Amino acid sequence: MVTMRDVAQRAGVSVATVSFVVNGSKPVRDETRERVEEAMLALGFHRNPLGAALARRGHTRIIAMLYPALERPLTPTAVAFFTGASRRAREQGYDLVMWPIGNDAEQVAVLARTGLVDGVLLMEVQLEDPRVDALRTAGVPFAMIGRTAEPEGIGYVDIDFAATTRDAVARLHALGHTRIAFVAGSEPGYQHAARTRAESAYRTAVTEIGGPATVIRVDESPAAGRALGERILTDHPGTTGVVILNEHAAAGLLIGLAHAGTSVPRDLSVVSMSTSAYMAEMAEPRLTYLRAPGAELGEWGVDALLERILSPDHAPRQRLLACEYVAGDTLAPAPAGAGAWAGA
Amino acid sequence: MVTMRDVAQRAGVSVATVSFVVNGSKPVRDETRERVEEAMLALGFHRNPLGAALARRGHTRIIAMLYPALERPLTPTAVAFFTGASRRAREQGYDLVMWPIGNDAEQVAVLARTGLVDGVLLMEVQLEDPRVDALRTAGVPFAMIGRTAEPEGIGYVDIDFAATTRDAVARLHALGHTRIAFVAGSEPGYQHAARTRAESAYRTAVTEIGGPATVIRVDESPAAGRALGERILTDHPGTTGVVILNEHAAAGLLIGLAHAGTSVPRDLSVVSMSTSAYMAEMAEPRLTYLRAPGAELGEWGVDALLERILSPDHAPRQRLLACEYVAGDTLAPAPAGAGAWAGA
Repeated sequence: MVTMRDVAQRAGVSVATVSFVVNGSKPVRDETRERVEEAMLALGFHRNPLGAALARRGHTRIIAMLYPALERPLTPTAVAFFTGASRRAREQGYDLVMWPIGNDAEQVAVLARTGLVDGVLLMEVQLEDPRVDALRTAGVPFAMIGRTAEPEGIGYVDIDFAATTRDAVARLHALGHTRIAFVAGSEPGYQHAARTRAESAYRTAVTEIGGPATVIRVDESPAAGRALGERILTDHPGTTGVVILNEHAAAGLLIGLAHAGTSVPRDLSVVSMSTSAYMAEMAEPRLTYLRAPGAELGEWGVDALLERILSPDHAPRQRLLACEYVAGDTLAPAPAGAGAWAGA
Repeated sequence: MVTMRDVAQRAGVSVATVSFVVNGSKPVRDETRERVEEAMLALGFHRNPLGAALARRGHTRIIAMLYPALERPLTPTAVAFFTGASRRAREQGYDLVMWPIGNDAEQVAVLARTGLVDGVLLMEVQLEDPRVDALRTAGVPFAMIGRTAEPEGIGYVDIDFAATTRDAVARLHALGHTRIAFVAGSEPGYQHAARTRAESAYRTAVTEIGGPATVIRVDESPAAGRALGERILTDHPGTTGVVILNEHAAAGLLIGLAHAGTSVPRDLSVVSMSTSAYMAEMAEPRLTYLRAPGAELGEWGVDALLERILSPDHAPRQRLLACEYVAGDTLAPAPAGAGAWAGA
């Protein structure tokens, strides 16, 4: 352990002078400061643990979760990712900070060059994500919550949107529904990967049960959900079931349906995908939903990242988690005479 | 601008060797490395901007927002603080990161010692907050979103809970309500300061209009709101108005009231304090509310902090913002014969 006394001796100054330089508590002549700083460097004395850590390049034991908070306010599900990831990081002796950087390769490169973080956890991952290339180029370990179109060689944990969508359609079909609409968000950028995978699985699943594919996109807001609820059965007559992947609009959808005189679930069943208990309880009737494994995703994401940091030669961890079904009050048999199909 | 060539010349090594040291791309003998590092220091060449910044002591241009995310998942209002603060920091050339540290003086001291951040923005401030002492001791500039019992000499921006509560009670009273209950959260720690100030203002205001003081505390969740709505008029008969400072429970309260056969606003009026448009639209009927100035608080908090960092000799900025009234569908005249008081 190098002390200020050692530095003072080597630089030929008093301990007080070293202290002034270290703490900035009094002005010191440039030449003296330089001598003290050279002695500090030669002896390996550092002002603070982070400075020391940076000098060793890496190992700050800080990891950053990148979330585009300026473009997309945190959803309750994203908050659960953050909470789970923070807790897991803490358990493993790391600090996790949320860094509000969007889909911006340049900002990611700047962060990487600071040497501030040991690794990065990407959120709101796009199918083609410029941040991935930026992190690879910078040589910063990273993992994803979500996944790109071709995630080979990258650690990730993601919701299995395809399996979850198949589950939602199958549960409606088992109760006689064949005319099932799919409601998603309308934002072009973020959530695109999840939506693309879910929508593709939806189209396959409804085709298999002989129903039409009806894809509806609305803004991610309660107001947009209200407006949709008021018009959905006028725009798409004969629909008896809705699978919704838009947690901000789900409670509003039910309010709009009530305004339009549609009884849920008697006239129309609703299954909400990738939703939290919190959002389900905010809705009336209480949503039947497929629970987003928020905290688990955060924990797994941290584990995948720490493996990249600590064992870069291991194969990256990759995992898909399906959403778990939670019964609520918005799923019932298809209304009689609604063109329900008795087969299968 | 010092280049690797300058460093190589001074250290008497090749540019490639300097590059190996800078990038850690190949092992370099200790003695050579030391010569290169001394040359780098003497010339003011730094591996990366953060390293350079740290060497100048501070001025990393990173500020941390401390939020106890492990103990208290982010509310929509807190998300608005974060978004507003991040945007403002970016405008001012700073990066703002969210650091999930709770009410823990020791963790705050560790963060302060790293020298990583130029300043700290405290959220979920307590009346007696041990983090304030820790930051003062560490000499780290800070400001608060919220305020302690005695915030003299500290920069802050806070919601004016007293004025906002008086406004809510006055609006109900103007419509003939005198039996007005106050619903708040039940968590003992966080939100205590806000609740204490609001509750005190509520007691004064209802006493002035000759009504009884009825304080009800429930968990901050939609489920707790539902349960309260189902029993509130049984537990507190004669109540015609509710002021609620618990945004997670407000939508559930309306659902529970509907279950109990209470018509809002015909039988009972509800005014939600410190609420967002998002939460108001999630509720049915749409909430009448006093809007939390979320983004503005975040922006003002950053301004107050940057002033501490850049002009430590100025008087700290302190500001209270009242919530703005937004008409919704949950406020109406007190029902006839409900003991309404025609005076004042």
